[in-house]
Amino acid sequence: MYSVNVRDHFMIAHSFSGAVFGPAQRLHGATYVVDLELRRTALDGDGIVVDIGLASQVLRAVLADLNFRNLDDDPAFSGRNTTTEFMARVIFDRLAARIEAGELGPQALGPTGLARMRVTLHESHVAWAAYEGALPADSA
Amino acid sequence: MYSVNVRDHFMIAHSFSGAVFGPAQRLHGATYVVDLELRRTALDGDGIVVDIGLASQVLRAVLADLNFRNLDDDPAFSGRNTTTEFMARVIFDRLAARIEAGELGPQALGPTGLARMRVTLHESHVAWAAYEGALPADSA
Amino acid sequence: MYSVNVRDHFMIAHSFSGAVFGPAQRLHGATYVVDLELRRTALDGDGIVVDIGLASQVLRAVLADLNFRNLDDDPAFSGRNTTTEFMARVIFDRLAARIEAGELGPQALGPTGLARMRVTLHESHVAWAAYEGALPADSA
Amino acid sequence: MYSVNVRDHFMIAHSFSGAVFGPAQRLHGATYVVDLELRRTALDGDGIVVDIGLASQVLRAVLADLNFRNLDDDPAFSGRNTTTEFMARVIFDRLAARIEAGELGPQALGPTGLARMRVTLHESHVAWAAYEGALPADSA
Amino acid sequence: MYSVNVRDHFMIAHSFSGAVFGPAQRLHGATYVVDLELRRTALDGDGIVVDIGLASQVLRAVLADLNFRNLDDDPAFSGRNTTTEFMARVIFDRLAARIEAGELGPQALGPTGLARMRVTLHESHVAWAAYEGALPADSA
Amino acid sequence: MYSVNVRDHFMIAHSFSGAVFGPAQRLHGATYVVDLELRRTALDGDGIVVDIGLASQVLRAVLADLNFRNLDDDPAFSGRNTTTEFMARVIFDRLAARIEAGELGPQALGPTGLARMRVTLHESHVAWAAYEGALPADSA
Repeated sequence: MYSVNVRDHFMIAHSFSGAVFGPAQRLHGATYVVDLELRRTALDGDGIVVDIGLASQVLRAVLADLNFRNLDDDPAFSGRNTTTEFMARVIFDRLAARIEAGELGPQALGPTGLARMRVTLHESHVAWAAYEGALPADSA
Repeated sequence: MYSVNVRDHFMIAHSFSGAVFGPAQRLHGATYVVDLELRRTALDGDGIVVDIGLASQVLRAVLADLNFRNLDDDPAFSGRNTTTEFMARVIFDRLAARIEAGELGPQALGPTGLARMRVTLHESHVAWAAYEGALPADSA
Repeated sequence: MYSVNVRDHFMIAHSFSGAVFGPAQRLHGATYVVDLELRRTALDGDGIVVDIGLASQVLRAVLADLNFRNLDDDPAFSGRNTTTEFMARVIFDRLAARIEAGELGPQALGPTGLARMRVTLHESHVAWAAYEGALPADSA
Repeated sequence: MYSVNVRDHFMIAHSFSGAVFGPAQRLHGATYVVDLELRRTALDGDGIVVDIGLASQVLRAVLADLNFRNLDDDPAFSGRNTTTEFMARVIFDRLAARIEAGELGPQALGPTGLARMRVTLHESHVAWAAYEGALPADSA
Repeated sequence: MYSVNVRDHFMIAHSFSGAVFGPAQRLHGATYVVDLELRRTALDGDGIVVDIGLASQVLRAVLADLNFRNLDDDPAFSGRNTTTEFMARVIFDRLAARIEAGELGPQALGPTGLARMRVTLHESHVAWAAYEGALPADSA
Repeated sequence: MYSVNVRDHFMIAHSFSGAVFGPAQRLHGATYVVDLELRRTALDGDGIVVDIGLASQVLRAVLADLNFRNLDDDPAFSGRNTTTEFMARVIFDRLAARIEAGELGPQALGPTGLARMRVTLHESHVAWAAYEGALPADSA
């Protein structure tokens, strides 16, 4: 199995509901450094897993909708805790939808296309969370 | 599959038996930077894999029993080489026992609880070792 | 010149005023991974620059006053942009005051004590800011 | 499952064929920081996955054949794009052949020997690629 | 003294002349991960050392002239070894010229503007080189 | 000012004397990842600060005398606490002596030679210490 990984980041404000979160129930924020790993059984005719420039663009587009925002104000997350692991899944699902829509090109699709994806959000030098699953993704 | 990872470290002295270890047969030591990764199929009601504060505490408690010690003097390791990969398994087993005892809370247990765990020990900028397995852990 | 460095982190929300900040004028947030470097011309009688445990505690205490907060609500920063470089100076000044108050011990003070301090805030994998100055610090 | 990882690097020139590569069609180059991860179900009698010194030597030997070279001039890669993911597989196959030839010792072979290998090439602070597979490796 | 740092990278081919370089006399290449650190005595009216977005753009523009190139073919380096430390100086000088031309804005100039700059090129996980000097830069 | 940095590591056991060290008074150990930074005002005729291969060899030779040892048994450190900052100075002095003896070549010496050196020992992901001084070094 081949993998390719690209990295970017975004910066958000949010707060959490629930005693388990302690002081993180207050409005605070985070930088998330994001690793997008794409996996494939065989390389395509160009010798690549995916066009790395395209993958970086699609990742940036998904993060741009979240970057410099207060996630508490985003209706998409109403009633949910936007924890690191939850956001890893949100980004996974949004990337998967763009891949299905052909934004990584036709070679990324079908039985010889991308097989799995892993999205990792590093929130500090001592903590990260990830979501990994098959492509095409199961409906959430 | 969701993952959450927390990081801590401990510092020990030890020596190895066996020609394969060369100069590491002498009494020396290591800093181990430890990554504890916990995996789960679905998030709990709070939107988390595990209480990250609790996970950090349990990891610190397991490492505290080893930190600032000469592992050659620990009866638990008598007759064994305390290599990086061996210590990754020791820490895995001790964490698994604490998880089974409920130290990460009741949500960590059972069929919807934590599914897998990976313990990685970084011994330098060029070498690390890990042990990964299912939860609840098989007896060693 | 000797140096010792300890690392910790804090997570905040804030917004900026001024066209130069573009989308960062919106309420967002950041994880700041903080390096505290203390410098001294000669080691003390124990062979150290500073009690590293004490230095970690004092850093943690200073960061605890900021952690999990919306800096826009803190009267101390009223009318100021809490940029990474500005916050590096805030943390420098608060650490310097605690050092002057003896929180790092009497050996840290006087002509043979700590000579310089550098506070670095890493805001992502591609950006950081720092403030460095002499100890005892000039009044801000 | 146990893992051990060793790290080294090599520096090459190359160019790519195909519009997907944009300006990387020009002759340029890369530093590849290489992680070699070896996995095994159980430790051997010495308490190790593999002799880490031997693993470092074998990795260095494989990289030495590539280091400080223009890959465009290497007949082994004629007509192929030496992308990061392609080179991860090349190094995987060359390491697998050396392991099969006994260069990591007899304990690395057979049903209780090394079970899987992962080769990761980091090309910058924002991109890496990998190839992972079972040992003994399938013929390419 | 305040500092702000931004990071980017470029990938080049080159060869060296001189027995001291051993196998690096052959055509090979490198990824250079570049840190640009800008220093200033006091913050400007917005509370910043420099517009970090502008600094990133100017760094990217300077690196774009070098990226995906064979430095042996660049007349600017004719008869020179494009070592890591030499390239750090080249990038320092090109950045300094753009700063003098006002590309980081008028606040970056003059006695209250940027005071020093450091350009660091990381060529692997075990080696880097840097050039640091005052601004405005002395002529090379 | 130009800088070049090379990195290596060593692993030791030791214990400390003095209540300030708490549990680190017990025999324990550390991995030290060592950065050797050499500075020079101008490049030599080959376009380098120093022969990086030679610098790596000299660093390795100095560390080999310490690696895989119990520092408590080394008469050179009798009655001293081998703290991270103390060991940074020890390695600085031993490197300085080898440079003075010509081990980095004649270009490293004299008024146009190496001007300063910094030795940094990283003991974990959250702590490091360093010693920096002029070359030729003052007698300790």
